[in-house]
Amino acid sequence: MGFNAEILSIGNELLIGKTTNTNLTWISGRLAEIGGNVHSALTVRDEIDEIAAGLKVLLKSRPDLLLTNGGLGPTFDDKTLQGVSYALNICLKLDETAVAWIKKKVGELNPARLKMAHLPDGATPLQNRAGTAPGVHLRTGDTNVFILPGVPDEMKAIFRDSVDPFLHRNFMLQPLFEASLLIYGIPESILASYLDECMLMFPEVYVKSHPLGVEEGKSKLNLHMTSYHDKGRVESAAAALAKRIRVMGGRVKTP
Amino acid sequence: MGFNAEILSIGNELLIGKTTNTNLTWISGRLAEIGGNVHSALTVRDEIDEIAAGLKVLLKSRPDLLLTNGGLGPTFDDKTLQGVSYALNICLKLDETAVAWIKKKVGELNPARLKMAHLPDGATPLQNRAGTAPGVHLRTGDTNVFILPGVPDEMKAIFRDSVDPFLHRNFMLQPLFEASLLIYGIPESILASYLDECMLMFPEVYVKSHPLGVEEGKSKLNLHMTSYHDKGRVESAAAALAKRIRVMGGRVKTP
Repeated sequence: MGFNAEILSIGNELLIGKTTNTNLTWISGRLAEIGGNVHSALTVRDEIDEIAAGLKVLLKSRPDLLLTNGGLGPTFDDKTLQGVSYALNICLKLDETAVAWIKKKVGELNPARLKMAHLPDGATPLQNRAGTAPGVHLRTGDTNVFILPGVPDEMKAIFRDSVDPFLHRNFMLQPLFEASLLIYGIPESILASYLDECMLMFPEVYVKSHPLGVEEGKSKLNLHMTSYHDKGRVESAAAALAKRIRVMGGRVKTP
Repeated sequence: MGFNAEILSIGNELLIGKTTNTNLTWISGRLAEIGGNVHSALTVRDEIDEIAAGLKVLLKSRPDLLLTNGGLGPTFDDKTLQGVSYALNICLKLDETAVAWIKKKVGELNPARLKMAHLPDGATPLQNRAGTAPGVHLRTGDTNVFILPGVPDEMKAIFRDSVDPFLHRNFMLQPLFEASLLIYGIPESILASYLDECMLMFPEVYVKSHPLGVEEGKSKLNLHMTSYHDKGRVESAAAALAKRIRVMGGRVKTP
């Protein structure tokens, strides 16, 4: 069952080599754990047009979930809500709940702080335990859009408090099942035909090889098996592959 | 005057929380150093359709450079060349130079190894010092497409040997100039108006604030200034901001 997701990351720092997108790793890992199938992930610059265009591209797959991160803060370069509002043709409107939360956090209001409380009309603010900028939830067509900050602690807090419970309420959740093998002494280009065999025997299991270089003169690989269907089948596929590799003279470890 | 770039990352592992896309950080950092303006970065799954669709989306901005990484190996899940060939409507053809390189690396040929030598017709193979799968260079419209492996060492080797020299030959290169300040004791929502002022005084400098939490009870921020135009202006903007922040009672460090 599961659900389809798209992720939009917003921030110039991700496109000039300044910041590595560990938010994407965390979010996609969390979604995989509960049956989310992340279809693609797009990173765009801090520009209203780019955010709007990115959102439109990702909505084309009609995902169940579209999660954005970055660009919710008080400074001029935080433009996510403007971009979303532009893409979806919804006005920004001062949200009284968001104003109350921000006031409680920082005391005095100023234009920069009020900016964070201007949400797309009809959207729901999401409380941010770890910072000031509220997250935002809105629906467009069949897609639930969750708009989260880029600061990792704030993103994670809102994900845990609001996104995760929402997904549990609204989707039949089953995890992505995984198994992993470390293979020594069989190069990937020899292994290729065993993987083809394995995929024929276990069509519902996806097997991917990740070369890890050479250790003590022997090629080292990580074989990673995943399935949304059945834990037993992933384990059977791993066992069958391990057996085959040992017969062919390779060494197998489970990491 | 610099050049526009798009980056396509290919690999399920990047969309299930298994692998963090450090290749994107490295590539976008290298491009920024030599005047490359990375417009957006897209990550897609190991599916021919998805790779083809991703490529088409990124070509819409008519970039000077489109760089892909991942999906060039010998196993069934390595589908980048098929995806590119599908998107651009070019047949895959056995490339004799690529065959010779692969043979030299691994000795015996087999179907999995020959797969890595089937390049889009008319493309140029790029030698891979660090592994077996050759990179690929081809041109479509005004865009130069460079197709690199996902294994970081191999990607970097081909980037250094082939992409970097190509960019130096074909574009007037100027780096992205940067300056950075660490600010203590002024929260982002107060700083916002100083940044607006600074952008008015230095319109060619882009200033971005990155909150870093709280240290000894004081908010900590990184201000990062960039410009493709003039090193002097970036430094002047940093100096002007530092002065303003000190006057307002904040502490400034250069990291």
